[in-house]
Amino acid sequence: MTAPPIRIAVLGSTGSIGRQTLDVVRQFPGRFSVVALAAGHNVEGLARQVAEFRPRYVSCESRSSTLDDAVAASGGRFAVMDAIAAAEGVDIVLVGTAGAAGLTPTLRALELGRPVAIANKEVLVMAGHLVRRAMLAGGGGLRPVDSEHSAIWQCLWGEANHEIRRILLTASGGAFRDFDTGQLARVTAEQALNHPTWKMGAKITVDCATLMNKGMETIEAMWLFGVPMEKVEVVLHRESIVHSLVEFSDGSVKAQLGVPDMRLPIQCALAYPERMPSPPAPPLDLAAIGALHFGTPDSSRFPCLKLAMEAGRRGGTFPAAMAAADEVAVGRFLAGEVGFLDIAGIVESVLARHDSVADPDLETVLAADSSARRMASAVQPALAPGAAH
Amino acid sequence: MTAPPIRIAVLGSTGSIGRQTLDVVRQFPGRFSVVALAAGHNVEGLARQVAEFRPRYVSCESRSSTLDDAVAASGGRFAVMDAIAAAEGVDIVLVGTAGAAGLTPTLRALELGRPVAIANKEVLVMAGHLVRRAMLAGGGGLRPVDSEHSAIWQCLWGEANHEIRRILLTASGGAFRDFDTGQLARVTAEQALNHPTWKMGAKITVDCATLMNKGMETIEAMWLFGVPMEKVEVVLHRESIVHSLVEFSDGSVKAQLGVPDMRLPIQCALAYPERMPSPPAPPLDLAAIGALHFGTPDSSRFPCLKLAMEAGRRGGTFPAAMAAADEVAVGRFLAGEVGFLDIAGIVESVLARHDSVADPDLETVLAADSSARRMASAVQPALAPGAAH
Repeated sequence: MTAPPIRIAVLGSTGSIGRQTLDVVRQFPGRFSVVALAAGHNVEGLARQVAEFRPRYVSCESRSSTLDDAVAASGGRFAVMDAIAAAEGVDIVLVGTAGAAGLTPTLRALELGRPVAIANKEVLVMAGHLVRRAMLAGGGGLRPVDSEHSAIWQCLWGEANHEIRRILLTASGGAFRDFDTGQLARVTAEQALNHPTWKMGAKITVDCATLMNKGMETIEAMWLFGVPMEKVEVVLHRESIVHSLVEFSDGSVKAQLGVPDMRLPIQCALAYPERMPSPPAPPLDLAAIGALHFGTPDSSRFPCLKLAMEAGRRGGTFPAAMAAADEVAVGRFLAGEVGFLDIAGIVESVLARHDSVADPDLETVLAADSSARRMASAVQPALAPGAAH
Repeated sequence: MTAPPIRIAVLGSTGSIGRQTLDVVRQFPGRFSVVALAAGHNVEGLARQVAEFRPRYVSCESRSSTLDDAVAASGGRFAVMDAIAAAEGVDIVLVGTAGAAGLTPTLRALELGRPVAIANKEVLVMAGHLVRRAMLAGGGGLRPVDSEHSAIWQCLWGEANHEIRRILLTASGGAFRDFDTGQLARVTAEQALNHPTWKMGAKITVDCATLMNKGMETIEAMWLFGVPMEKVEVVLHRESIVHSLVEFSDGSVKAQLGVPDMRLPIQCALAYPERMPSPPAPPLDLAAIGALHFGTPDSSRFPCLKLAMEAGRRGGTFPAAMAAADEVAVGRFLAGEVGFLDIAGIVESVLARHDSVADPDLETVLAADSSARRMASAVQPALAPGAAH
C-alpha cells in the first residue's frame, strides 16, 4: 500500500455515522487520515477524538476548555464547517451531521468538485435539486453512505443510469411493523428507540419506526440517481440483508446484500473506486439465514411513507417543509409531548398548510424549513389528523 | 435506433438455446440479424429457420433436399462451423451446441478477437484453459449465456475480478431435491426430464437433477472469471429467482435476480454493453413471491456436484473425462439402460481410472474425451459405485 492516505473531513464526527467512520479509519490507518472533525454539542466526545486523530481543522457549536486544550495540543485550529468543506488538503468530505446543518458544506464541497460521502438524508430531502446542480456544475461525486443508497450505487457501477426501470428500496418495516393502529397509538419513545437491526441516533430510529426514514430515502434516491419518483418503490424486507435493488430496462434486477453493518457502506464510499481488502464484518451466510422475506408496506398504518413520497413527487419546498416538520414532530414525541401517530399527523397538518415555492434557492429552502418548524411546534396533537386514529 | 444490426452466428440453432436466441432476434428485428445458422441433425427445423432468417451461412451434420432447397432459395451457402466462426461479417458467435462440438469454433472465434456468447458448458469444462488462453490472446470476450454465469457477469460489471472473494452459484436443487437415496435409485428418465423451472434439452435437464450441471457450472465459473475453485461455492435456492451472487473483498455481496426466462441472459449477452429497452418477461414482483430460500447442497445424495468440483480442482484432463463420462452415462440413463444413481457411479468409476494429462492441448483433451466415452459405455451398472447405494 504505497498510495498516500485519503484525507477525510468528518462532519458530525460524534454522531453514530461519524463514530463508525472513525472506526473504519482506525481499521485502515495507512489508508485514511482525518484532516477535520466537526461536531455539534458533544464537546467532550469531540475533544477525545481530536486527541486521538489530531486533525488540522476542528469545528464545534459549543466550546469547553478541554476541547480548546485538545485542539491546541494537537496543533490544529478551529474553523467553521463551510470553511472545512472548502479547505486545502481535504480529499473527501463525509457529511454525517443530522438535520439541515450539513447542507451548505455539502454544496460548497460539490461546487469545488470534491467527492462528498453523504449520510445526511435531510440535505438531499430539503435541497436535492441544489445538491444535484452543485454536483453536476462542480463535477464532485456524491457517494451515498446509508446502506440502501450504497446498495443502489453499487448496483449501478458499470451500468447506465438511463437504463434504470425501477429502484426498489428495501425497508425492514421498523420496530412496529406488526403493530395494529391501536398498538401504534400507545407506542412510547423508549419502545421506538429499540430498532431491531441497526444501532443509530434517536431521530433516525424514530423515523425508521414511522417509515418516514424510508420515505425520505425515496426522495434521496431521486436526487442521487437522477430518477423521477415514479421509478422508486419500497419493498418490505424484514431481515435487512438485501439492502436495495435496481431493475434495469431489460428486466434484469441487481441487488446488494450484506450483514447489517454501517461500516461497510462507509468504507465503500471512502475507498471508491476500490474495495478495501479487509472485511468489516463476518461474511454473509445465506444458507444459515435460510430465507429472505419480502412484502408490501402498509401505508394506512404508516402514513409517513406516503406523505414523504407525495412531497417528493410535488417537489418545490414540500420536501424541505416535510423534513423540518418531521424533525420537530419527532422531537416532541421523544419529549413525551405527543403520541407516535401524532408524528404523521403533525407532518400532514404542516404540509396541508405549506405554501410551496417551485425550484427554490437555498434561502427559500431555509425559510420553508423555519416556517414548517414553527407550524409543527404549534400543532396541537388533538388537531393532528394522526391523533384521530 | 440507427446503429447497424448486430450480426449473429447461431451455432446449435435448433436446440433450446438456439431457438430462444432466434426468439430474441424476432423481438428486435432492426437490432439483430442472423448471418449464420448451424445445427446437428434436426434438418427440417433448420430448413424452416433458414427460410425465415435467410442466413448467409448454413451448417448441418445431416442433409435433406428440403434443407438444400431452403439454402438455395435464401441465397446462402453451406459451410462448416469452424469456417462460420471465422467468417467475414460475423459480429458475435453464439455457441448453443451441446457437447464437444462447440469447442473448436469457440477457440477459432476468440483467437480472431470476436465476442462469443457461450451457452455450451462442455466447451469450458473440457478445455477452459484453452478457451481462456484464446480469449486473452485474441482479445475476444466471453459473454456467458446461462443464467447463473450471466448473473455473475452482470454483478462484475464495474468491478475488478481480483476483488472477488467468493462466487456463489445458486442451484434450484433439481427435480429430486427432496428425494432420499432410495427414491433417487428408482427415478425414471421421464421423471428426470420434468424440470421444475426451466424448459431445456434432455441432457442438461438430467444434469440438473443429478447436480452435475451445477458442478460443471463451478468449473465454467473458474474459467469465465479467472478464479480458483476455492472461491466457488454452491448455494441451494429453490425459487430460481436469484440467479447467482458474488462476494467482494470488503464483504459486500451483489446478486442478479429475475424471473426465470433464458431469453434475458441471451439478450444481455447479445446486446452488451447495452441493455435492451424491451422486457422479455413480466417484471419481478418480490412482494408477490414473498420469500426466497437458501440452503446447502447435500453431496451425499447428489455426488455429481462433488465429483465435478473435485475434477475442476485437479484440472488437467479430469474435467474433460468427467464431462464425456457424464454425457455417456446420461445417454444410458435416458435409454433406460442404467439407473439414476448409476450416472454418478459411472462418472466416478471413469475418473478413478482416468490417466490425467496436465495442461493438455486440444488433441489431448479430445483423446481424453474419447477414452472416457469408451470407458463410460463399458461400465456395468452393477460395478458402478452409485449402484451400491
